[in-house]
Amino acid sequence: MFFHTQKLINPIAADEPDPAAANILQEGLGGQFGEMRTMMQYLFQSFNARGDAKPFKDLIQGVGIEEISHVELITTTINLLLDGSSRYQGKNAKTKAKGAAAKKAPKEPGAGGTTPLDEAPFAPNTHHFIVAPQCALPVDAAGNPWSGSYVYASGNLVLDLMYNLMLESTGRLQKCRIYEMSDNKTLRSTVAFLIARDHAHELAFAKALESLGVNWGKVLPIPNFDASQYPEVKKLMDLGIHLKQHHFRLDGSEMGKIFQGNSPVNDGTEVETEEEAPEGAPIEDLPERPEEFAPGLTPELLEMVEAVKRYK
Amino acid sequence: MFFHTQKLINPIAADEPDPAAANILQEGLGGQFGEMRTMMQYLFQSFNARGDAKPFKDLIQGVGIEEISHVELITTTINLLLDGSSRYQGKNAKTKAKGAAAKKAPKEPGAGGTTPLDEAPFAPNTHHFIVAPQCALPVDAAGNPWSGSYVYASGNLVLDLMYNLMLESTGRLQKCRIYEMSDNKTLRSTVAFLIARDHAHELAFAKALESLGVNWGKVLPIPNFDASQYPEVKKLMDLGIHLKQHHFRLDGSEMGKIFQGNSPVNDGTEVETEEEAPEGAPIEDLPERPEEFAPGLTPELLEMVEAVKRYK
Amino acid sequence: MFFHTQKLINPIAADEPDPAAANILQEGLGGQFGEMRTMMQYLFQSFNARGDAKPFKDLIQGVGIEEISHVELITTTINLLLDGSSRYQGKNAKTKAKGAAAKKAPKEPGAGGTTPLDEAPFAPNTHHFIVAPQCALPVDAAGNPWSGSYVYASGNLVLDLMYNLMLESTGRLQKCRIYEMSDNKTLRSTVAFLIARDHAHELAFAKALESLGVNWGKVLPIPNFDASQYPEVKKLMDLGIHLKQHHFRLDGSEMGKIFQGNSPVNDGTEVETEEEAPEGAPIEDLPERPEEFAPGLTPELLEMVEAVKRYK
Amino acid sequence: MFFHTQKLINPIAADEPDPAAANILQEGLGGQFGEMRTMMQYLFQSFNARGDAKPFKDLIQGVGIEEISHVELITTTINLLLDGSSRYQGKNAKTKAKGAAAKKAPKEPGAGGTTPLDEAPFAPNTHHFIVAPQCALPVDAAGNPWSGSYVYASGNLVLDLMYNLMLESTGRLQKCRIYEMSDNKTLRSTVAFLIARDHAHELAFAKALESLGVNWGKVLPIPNFDASQYPEVKKLMDLGIHLKQHHFRLDGSEMGKIFQGNSPVNDGTEVETEEEAPEGAPIEDLPERPEEFAPGLTPELLEMVEAVKRYK
Amino acid sequence: MFFHTQKLINPIAADEPDPAAANILQEGLGGQFGEMRTMMQYLFQSFNARGDAKPFKDLIQGVGIEEISHVELITTTINLLLDGSSRYQGKNAKTKAKGAAAKKAPKEPGAGGTTPLDEAPFAPNTHHFIVAPQCALPVDAAGNPWSGSYVYASGNLVLDLMYNLMLESTGRLQKCRIYEMSDNKTLRSTVAFLIARDHAHELAFAKALESLGVNWGKVLPIPNFDASQYPEVKKLMDLGIHLKQHHFRLDGSEMGKIFQGNSPVNDGTEVETEEEAPEGAPIEDLPERPEEFAPGLTPELLEMVEAVKRYK
Amino acid sequence: MFFHTQKLINPIAADEPDPAAANILQEGLGGQFGEMRTMMQYLFQSFNARGDAKPFKDLIQGVGIEEISHVELITTTINLLLDGSSRYQGKNAKTKAKGAAAKKAPKEPGAGGTTPLDEAPFAPNTHHFIVAPQCALPVDAAGNPWSGSYVYASGNLVLDLMYNLMLESTGRLQKCRIYEMSDNKTLRSTVAFLIARDHAHELAFAKALESLGVNWGKVLPIPNFDASQYPEVKKLMDLGIHLKQHHFRLDGSEMGKIFQGNSPVNDGTEVETEEEAPEGAPIEDLPERPEEFAPGLTPELLEMVEAVKRYK
Repeated sequence: MFFHTQKLINPIAADEPDPAAANILQEGLGGQFGEMRTMMQYLFQSFNARGDAKPFKDLIQGVGIEEISHVELITTTINLLLDGSSRYQGKNAKTKAKGAAAKKAPKEPGAGGTTPLDEAPFAPNTHHFIVAPQCALPVDAAGNPWSGSYVYASGNLVLDLMYNLMLESTGRLQKCRIYEMSDNKTLRSTVAFLIARDHAHELAFAKALESLGVNWGKVLPIPNFDASQYPEVKKLMDLGIHLKQHHFRLDGSEMGKIFQGNSPVNDGTEVETEEEAPEGAPIEDLPERPEEFAPGLTPELLEMVEAVKRYK
Repeated sequence: MFFHTQKLINPIAADEPDPAAANILQEGLGGQFGEMRTMMQYLFQSFNARGDAKPFKDLIQGVGIEEISHVELITTTINLLLDGSSRYQGKNAKTKAKGAAAKKAPKEPGAGGTTPLDEAPFAPNTHHFIVAPQCALPVDAAGNPWSGSYVYASGNLVLDLMYNLMLESTGRLQKCRIYEMSDNKTLRSTVAFLIARDHAHELAFAKALESLGVNWGKVLPIPNFDASQYPEVKKLMDLGIHLKQHHFRLDGSEMGKIFQGNSPVNDGTEVETEEEAPEGAPIEDLPERPEEFAPGLTPELLEMVEAVKRYK
Repeated sequence: MFFHTQKLINPIAADEPDPAAANILQEGLGGQFGEMRTMMQYLFQSFNARGDAKPFKDLIQGVGIEEISHVELITTTINLLLDGSSRYQGKNAKTKAKGAAAKKAPKEPGAGGTTPLDEAPFAPNTHHFIVAPQCALPVDAAGNPWSGSYVYASGNLVLDLMYNLMLESTGRLQKCRIYEMSDNKTLRSTVAFLIARDHAHELAFAKALESLGVNWGKVLPIPNFDASQYPEVKKLMDLGIHLKQHHFRLDGSEMGKIFQGNSPVNDGTEVETEEEAPEGAPIEDLPERPEEFAPGLTPELLEMVEAVKRYK
Repeated sequence: MFFHTQKLINPIAADEPDPAAANILQEGLGGQFGEMRTMMQYLFQSFNARGDAKPFKDLIQGVGIEEISHVELITTTINLLLDGSSRYQGKNAKTKAKGAAAKKAPKEPGAGGTTPLDEAPFAPNTHHFIVAPQCALPVDAAGNPWSGSYVYASGNLVLDLMYNLMLESTGRLQKCRIYEMSDNKTLRSTVAFLIARDHAHELAFAKALESLGVNWGKVLPIPNFDASQYPEVKKLMDLGIHLKQHHFRLDGSEMGKIFQGNSPVNDGTEVETEEEAPEGAPIEDLPERPEEFAPGLTPELLEMVEAVKRYK
Repeated sequence: MFFHTQKLINPIAADEPDPAAANILQEGLGGQFGEMRTMMQYLFQSFNARGDAKPFKDLIQGVGIEEISHVELITTTINLLLDGSSRYQGKNAKTKAKGAAAKKAPKEPGAGGTTPLDEAPFAPNTHHFIVAPQCALPVDAAGNPWSGSYVYASGNLVLDLMYNLMLESTGRLQKCRIYEMSDNKTLRSTVAFLIARDHAHELAFAKALESLGVNWGKVLPIPNFDASQYPEVKKLMDLGIHLKQHHFRLDGSEMGKIFQGNSPVNDGTEVETEEEAPEGAPIEDLPERPEEFAPGLTPELLEMVEAVKRYK
Repeated sequence: MFFHTQKLINPIAADEPDPAAANILQEGLGGQFGEMRTMMQYLFQSFNARGDAKPFKDLIQGVGIEEISHVELITTTINLLLDGSSRYQGKNAKTKAKGAAAKKAPKEPGAGGTTPLDEAPFAPNTHHFIVAPQCALPVDAAGNPWSGSYVYASGNLVLDLMYNLMLESTGRLQKCRIYEMSDNKTLRSTVAFLIARDHAHELAFAKALESLGVNWGKVLPIPNFDASQYPEVKKLMDLGIHLKQHHFRLDGSEMGKIFQGNSPVNDGTEVETEEEAPEGAPIEDLPERPEEFAPGLTPELLEMVEAVKRYK
């Protein structure tokens, strides 16, 4: 059974809207190696686990639970990058706003035939404005919808662990590439966190394989470079974010029997399982977007919403 | 942020294996109107909610969190229906096992060229045996993988609520059809529970629209019939399972401001929000399936697993 | 602009229900070379036609309009093959009905836990019973949904005509194979008609290319055999159904400038364009299927439907 | 049976070419909530209708027939927005034409190595120039092909009507967003017409549900705003285009038993069924595009086309 | 540049036709972990290789070239399993042939309305008979078409090698499961060969990673069992088929610098690169299938084919 | 059985990087009418050939083998167009590089938070930088992955030949359009070669149909224009590249019995089969791209690679 608390797993830095940054971040949400995939893959592997290798099942499921919170985090980050971007004219704007868009949007969007969304046809993914209300979609950076065929759960423990290690490494590789594509602070705060967490997940699956006898020599982490050269990642690594694993279980976990002791990277560091959940960060409401008819409440409907809110 | 506890949201009854029953149940897991879809749709709608209509957001998210537990429940149910089915020769077996399969499977499956999986080519979905280890897949009853294009999150509150009402009604419609397709007790226990819960979710979204002014007259529930004629559903309805909603939030929810009072079905019943989570049922381990190489641990690897389990 | 009249383009013979026959016929509806594809392809080609080669555009569009009526015909045929099949126990039934299904279905399907749909899990496509109410779906015989990527409209006249010739030939090839798979009269009446009409469409596109200078020698029709060896097709060929083309335009067509005179098959026959539409056959209502909750009207709702029907 | 007349259902205003406007309009053609989908969904629902609720079947089919004409209209509109756009250098051009493209295209496109299509690689969907000859495609605004999995036809009348209401509302929502993205007159004339017609279709399905007992209060139309603030839509609403429904049947329809009297919006307006089809507007030929080899007729082939045209 | 010689890479044993065996073997051809995928993945990885690690590129490409021959082998095997199966009545037939099918097929299939293909509607994939002429398709065992999204080529050498090791292990896992599903000798001869070759490919990629410092301990091969308990595999292993690698290059390869010496399985065996290609086996012609209109040559066309064959 | 030699089938001219040119060229690689499709279609048709029309089978397979080399050629061309493009600032750059990207990329990409890939979010397909390391993907110019459903192999010889003729003609049509979209010399050298080769393949299939009795009159080639007006194509046509066919068989081919004598274009030219393979061009190594972590070898790993290279 699953539960929720109204906290983001990591805070998101404020910066200006940027639909191109939002679009590349979609790869981390709905891409073949993104958070929706890791979430569903680890949940299926743990629901389908055979035999009684409980610490291994708990490790896989523990990472899987965390990934639901990553889906929440990256969706929210994309929302912040898109919100208001159609009328945005600041430093990250690739093209100059023209005509109606250059003026303040009227109270009634489109009234008199104005075009408050006239930047949208030139956005990398116009669905962010036509299908979604300047919000994230379950698609990748090329607009392909997420597919159930991504999920890998062979039932063979060694194989599942090896796939997961490769999956986290690819996720980290792609996020490092995305990091080098944009210095938007909103994007960077989440990408840096996910680089550190994918690092920890790599270690988790590598450690599980090490416990079965593999010695990784010097090939880990993958990609094999010092991510602390990225300032935003360095701050998190200095806190050891890439070496810790929470289990997100309300009734305990045996994950810690595997994820403890020497790092499988063989660099002298140590990994550690935390019993307590991270503190988390507050979630802000997204403002209304009348030009998207979202939430689209008229004065009459708003009055009813207020009546509901006053209840009890 | 999300958390997990090792309980199923509802107990699963024991019965004999039945791959055809497992296959039709896949529609409820990975189908266009199945639990993976409701889960992702409501989570996206709540992450992307605009404006401050908090009770509505909490209602949608509350149902969404529950749906993760439904994914866990239905996946586990399919696993139980598939487990061991390839060698099964009891009353639900459609064809008689022949040759090698009729004998007890040897300790080493396939040793000497035997065919312990010789019923698998005739199963409705052979992927349950080739791709998965006699376990559930994120696909529908026709084998189509789940798709991100199913998720609907328009940002318009009235529209999202109306879609959700239609979605739950279709889910309930399909599950009632599935109920009439099989009397396998394992399938029935979960289908009956989901019929009752889809009923409650219909009421939740219908009630939210009622609070905005819609009067549903006599069209609800959809499909419009008395599900208590199904004995397994009747037991749950007698407990009021179709009239209650838990919020699954560790830090509280405003869902109860909407989901309370007269049912939108206009039949004199009352709906109610529960603060406490349901008690839940224990999760059993799935046995090893050597003929699927799952988990595929050799004596040497098993010894290392045991060493891990002894840790601390 | 398009119009409709309540006639089927060809009558459908009565026979017993047969879900396996229904399933293979799906290829002719939603398959890569089925009627939905020819319909959309020719409509797109005619909407997108460049230059002023009007007789060619009219020929393509004339066939395209006919294809909408073919979609109506084949959908209705599949419906008749599926209707009631879940409880069917006659000569085409592959397996013996057991238990509850062997008794007359109760007035309230599923009441008391009975299983009126217990043959459905063994149908070739369970979606015919779970997703549709024993009715056709826009999918092929392997369950793949129809895709817009099938539509070919290159804008090059010679290329479009050659593709269309190949498309109709493949359609005819597949329908001849389907003919040899079942002797169900319902299936046969529609398949025979479509074999004859695909033949005519082959001739239409071959004749258009002949008018541009190609001499087809003896390779036509494709597949190159005498379809009059199929008794149901012979009856239609004796009426010349495979040599005529209606234009289905209310305001005239220039198609006849191409489709007239010697057949491009070079066998001495002549082809001809008809100004009048075919007479057509009446469309019967499908009965209610309470076990599918279709249409699912309760006594109260039925009363309102009756009130609507009495209006004026 | 279906018929055609060579009229567009609404005239299209002239304006300059604009491939970005063409691309966003693709959502209305091949998108999940576009005209191809409404067309196929309503046709399937009417072909598959069970029971004898004829006015309801006629209402659904009447809207379905109209949608075929909408597919024709929107396809033609996209064609006009794309035609010639690759060499276009006027006010809507996002980038300056360079080099060869800046000169008048030579009689033989590409002769001497020139690049008459050098803007195409920067168009939102390069398939408009590589796959289609500057014409519409059966895809959405993100380039995804239309899918048969979009079609919803559950067989349950209430559920189908509710889905259709939601579908039309989403169509109207997306078209209002598209309206606000571009002031191109060609796009606007068709988008404004479709906003008014989706409005009428919303009313049609809402009215059908009202006749079954639902009272919609103040939630309709969806999105809930006054579209007459858009000048192009206002002109059509002043003519009552959003309150009328034609049935497009040559042999009569019972749709009018439902679609008459007070609007389900509860604003005092009245809805009405028209027996006569709309007048329609002439369809113009698209010019040749030699740089696309469309229709690609050489002098020799043209001569044969002329011979065909002179026939009889 | 690529070349071909008319030899199969391994001989195929004769046995009776078996469409269910053909269908499960499709997973090995067009499945997510089948031969089409390994072929395209290794070719893309080698075409896209960066830097000058030539022995590694040659190893990956060498396996990739071999995979094209595997596609040829498995396609041919499926063809042999399907050929004639529609009229087959021998020991593997699941259902009894009835009516016309029980008699010898007439010279003109379907003449007089007979049904030579009447077993086809009950085949696991009817496309084998409707779309293909009793031949293989580029799809998996659930009928899903092969997808380019399967191909993984990250550009990171360690990651690509690790993915490839996992890919071969999964291929071997699935083929071992398929082995246990059928004792058809035609299927077994090819599956046994591919189990041995996937084993060798596992070793190739594991050895490449070992050369970069990884020690695999006792986790290899995956799945971790002794495949020589399968008699058909044992014969090949006794010949060392699972320990050798040919490079299939006409102008030499540096693959042998990696694939030599101690096996990465750490069991004391040695691996070895062969300069010479395997001897191969002859390819037999498939017979005509008039009931599929394949090749569908009439006496007149056959005469022209004969004229062509006599040329020079 | 298949073999490889380390030569490209045609040399590639050097020019500046151009991601938009790379993207349109993807249509020729992974598009519905691109080289991956022709390759797989002809291989399947030849593996599945029925009857003993050997010269026809050899013709189809001969073209199919050549297509594997075309996949190698076009993949390599796209790689060269992408390589280094993210930091490129020369004449083809659509936008000016800003900030960090304007400086020489640091030795450690991204060090200190720089953005060496900051042009990538604006590339037509961001997957070229996020998923691939500035390399080709098995997708089309709109980002859709290649699909097995493209492959057509009906088993009917006339139909397969006609489809193949149409397929090559469409391939040539699209490549002519692509030619007119860019004057990048790298793109042009490969596109010009493929225009000439598609021309030859058109002739091959047209000639095969001519040998069965079709007279093509003046409709060929398709599109019907003189491609020698394109200077890069003229050079190849002057060498007769469009009139020759190699068979790429190490043990001989009967293709020459068909492909000889008068061209089916009926223009007085002659076609000819060559026994010898083309000379080919050397393949250059792609440089490392540290900003993509490709191949991502650290000094320690590089040392091991060097040790491997020194072996023997």
